[in-house]
Amino acid sequence: MKRILLLTTGGTIASRPTGEGLAPGLDGAALSRCLGALTDSYDLTVQDILHLDSSNIQPEEWRLIARHVFDAREEFDGVVVSHGTDTMAYTASMLSYMVRNIPIPVVLTGAQLPIEHPLTDGLDNLRTAFAMAASGRPGVFLAFDRRVMLGCRAVKTHTTAFGAFDSVNWPLVGRVDGAGLSIRRDAVPPLDGPCRLRDKLCEAVFLIKLTPGLDPEIFDMLLRMHYRGVVIEAFGAGGLHFIRRNLIEKLHAAAQAGMAVVVCSQCLYESSNFALYQAGQKALAQGVIQGYDMTTEAAVTKLMWALGQTDRLDEVREIFSQSLCGERSV
Amino acid sequence: MKRILLLTTGGTIASRPTGEGLAPGLDGAALSRCLGALTDSYDLTVQDILHLDSSNIQPEEWRLIARHVFDAREEFDGVVVSHGTDTMAYTASMLSYMVRNIPIPVVLTGAQLPIEHPLTDGLDNLRTAFAMAASGRPGVFLAFDRRVMLGCRAVKTHTTAFGAFDSVNWPLVGRVDGAGLSIRRDAVPPLDGPCRLRDKLCEAVFLIKLTPGLDPEIFDMLLRMHYRGVVIEAFGAGGLHFIRRNLIEKLHAAAQAGMAVVVCSQCLYESSNFALYQAGQKALAQGVIQGYDMTTEAAVTKLMWALGQTDRLDEVREIFSQSLCGERSV
Repeated sequence: MKRILLLTTGGTIASRPTGEGLAPGLDGAALSRCLGALTDSYDLTVQDILHLDSSNIQPEEWRLIARHVFDAREEFDGVVVSHGTDTMAYTASMLSYMVRNIPIPVVLTGAQLPIEHPLTDGLDNLRTAFAMAASGRPGVFLAFDRRVMLGCRAVKTHTTAFGAFDSVNWPLVGRVDGAGLSIRRDAVPPLDGPCRLRDKLCEAVFLIKLTPGLDPEIFDMLLRMHYRGVVIEAFGAGGLHFIRRNLIEKLHAAAQAGMAVVVCSQCLYESSNFALYQAGQKALAQGVIQGYDMTTEAAVTKLMWALGQTDRLDEVREIFSQSLCGERSV
Repeated sequence: MKRILLLTTGGTIASRPTGEGLAPGLDGAALSRCLGALTDSYDLTVQDILHLDSSNIQPEEWRLIARHVFDAREEFDGVVVSHGTDTMAYTASMLSYMVRNIPIPVVLTGAQLPIEHPLTDGLDNLRTAFAMAASGRPGVFLAFDRRVMLGCRAVKTHTTAFGAFDSVNWPLVGRVDGAGLSIRRDAVPPLDGPCRLRDKLCEAVFLIKLTPGLDPEIFDMLLRMHYRGVVIEAFGAGGLHFIRRNLIEKLHAAAQAGMAVVVCSQCLYESSNFALYQAGQKALAQGVIQGYDMTTEAAVTKLMWALGQTDRLDEVREIFSQSLCGERSV
């Protein structure tokens, strides 16, 4: 029987009604009691590491989860992390960088309804996650609604639907149906080296989703607040305004001040490409780094991670030119 | 024959290749020459009002477009606005508020490929837009890829696909097929009063898309910069972090300082509801205004518009409690 480690962190799956709305109340032992016959199929170890609504999962928690996952890589065949859905895509992306080349499957999952709810999707999601964790396919994945996706490509697109996550700009890794779990091998990037825990990151990264007429002063403010990196969700494939309110000029000033600026699109799907339009080309001339088809979650966490690895902008640029774990198409 | 006014503003549809990438180069007369036999079906008047990549369409342009649209309401049966795709959803939302209850159809459209490109989608989009403009159904709409949607529900979801826009949390208003343009009447909100041009707005609105661990200091900074409104794209149905980095506390301070805070979701689809979870309930207790199922584009422009109509927070809250043009479900 495959040895699976279930790390619990809280989230809706482990929540119970309270006077203030749903809050994480179940520990791993209580979760396990809900699993029924599912526990007969795996050699399961449960470990509680956090009890948080995932809105409160932050860089400190990413490091904690990464360390536990890294430490499990030899003793277990796979790891499942139960996690709130709200920030699961951010955690999945960050883990993908921190435990890159992990030799076992690491599968995040959660639920839209608590596991004790009579209509819960949590048990079903754990079924898929356990099967993926036992699959022998290494990498960081997210299992939800009978589908498995690459962790660094997942985005929470729905607030309520059981199909809350989508695999953005990347095919699904797996599907569950009457044939069991079918895995699409070419959707799983191969390992390319030994696994090391690289959990240093820089929190001073800000995400700007552009709105028409945004005052470019925001960049001066971010520099004064000592932000070291900015991810810009530009308009469409690569638009930023530069008439009257000149964002391009500010990109230049930010680059001069040593700030790393990554540009991607506020469109959910398909790639940005700043070389297509005049506005985008002007931005590229200021030294911005293109995010291409990365999700915003993958771009923000990658910039935090890259700035944790190096202080040098040319090295950050080099890190972004590569796909570390399938997060961008090259 | 129906009298249609085509207002051109630039955008990809009117673009030509330049040394710096695509840039708006065609005026309305040049656009018209590409229309071929389509001009035989309508009594068409063309007026150039702008020549901009839509990344440069900002509050000043919104007011200009709104005034032209408003002025056309008696002389024409419908208005088509050709516009870049990048910020078209923002313009469509803002126009919906500025010329609310306009008695004729106002239809924004554009293209993913220039109208002179041999594979252009621009001509097809204009076909749909003209048909909708001639339909007699009043309101502000967006026509793209043989589909018509309510302007305040449109979101650009794809950077490259011809089907670049989606109607978010609202059914399509119309579809084109062998039966012509079929309009779903219950998807068009009825007029509820006379049309007045209300084009005052407040630019001092900032959009924050939350990332895990975001430093709450951003709120102090925005207050110092004299922002009067903030729209927060929270996690999932309504999550914000409050452990170690306490966003909830800052919401309280912002409310005390008279800032209007609207919360919606960074999930593209379905409604946010801050009453569901503990974190969201804490935010509501600080007086934030719920955006529910509004798109971010509709929420940001509505807050700009509402703060242009009134200085009183209770009136802003009242404006957000209503659906002015179908922008939120009530």
